[in-house]
Amino acid sequence: MIGKFNHVAIVVPDIDAARIIYRDILGAKVSGVEDYPDHGVRVVCVELPNTVIELMTPLDEDSPVANFLKRSPAGGIHHICLEVEDIIEARNRLRAEGVRILGDGEPKTGAHGKPVLFAHPKDLCGTLIEIEEA
Amino acid sequence: MIGKFNHVAIVVPDIDAARIIYRDILGAKVSGVEDYPDHGVRVVCVELPNTVIELMTPLDEDSPVANFLKRSPAGGIHHICLEVEDIIEARNRLRAEGVRILGDGEPKTGAHGKPVLFAHPKDLCGTLIEIEEA
Repeated sequence: MIGKFNHVAIVVPDIDAARIIYRDILGAKVSGVEDYPDHGVRVVCVELPNTVIELMTPLDEDSPVANFLKRSPAGGIHHICLEVEDIIEARNRLRAEGVRILGDGEPKTGAHGKPVLFAHPKDLCGTLIEIEEA
Repeated sequence: MIGKFNHVAIVVPDIDAARIIYRDILGAKVSGVEDYPDHGVRVVCVELPNTVIELMTPLDEDSPVANFLKRSPAGGIHHICLEVEDIIEARNRLRAEGVRILGDGEPKTGAHGKPVLFAHPKDLCGTLIEIEEA
């Protein structure tokens, strides 16, 4: 079912500082800073040859990643995103196997303009996994 | 400096259960279970088209990932591994930028038989990053 590894998302307290660390210390190709108000996050993409690291920071207190930063003020790895061909089929398969889907279970449009869903980390080895229709 | 995303490592409490979840629920190609006594871990590789997810569990109490599981009993994302061309050059560049290298700073032979080092998460946005000579 799952295809390519789309990205790993890392929550950081200071997105500008993180962008400079990845660009100047790790020597990676980084995007500009972009706001996604619908998702409550400010994002920088680190473009590696085979996948992407998404650096993100909450835009406000209501951001879905604000609590993560309260628990881990220095930042940390938040989730991984895996691609699927058909998100409804993937969701139904996960549910049939007893994996809970977060929210109302209807795909949302992710930051890349594609339908996405998140599965409950407790049902997938403690890892928050986003699935994205490729 | 950094090249390809080599793998993301996920620590799990039960490697056999995790292997079945990735194989049968997520429908991914998984390796057999392999022990790495030198690294204190038992590993399953999930082979995605563009990179690898390494599932790992401690072999004993002295394992470098045993404490992680004490803090997060359900498991979680432990580190990411990024490739570099020359590990000594990479280490020296990181150090020159104030990034601490874990251990004695001399590359160890990683599970893939390549030289590896780990950088201090506090110096890289809260993320434990392994660098591996490609």
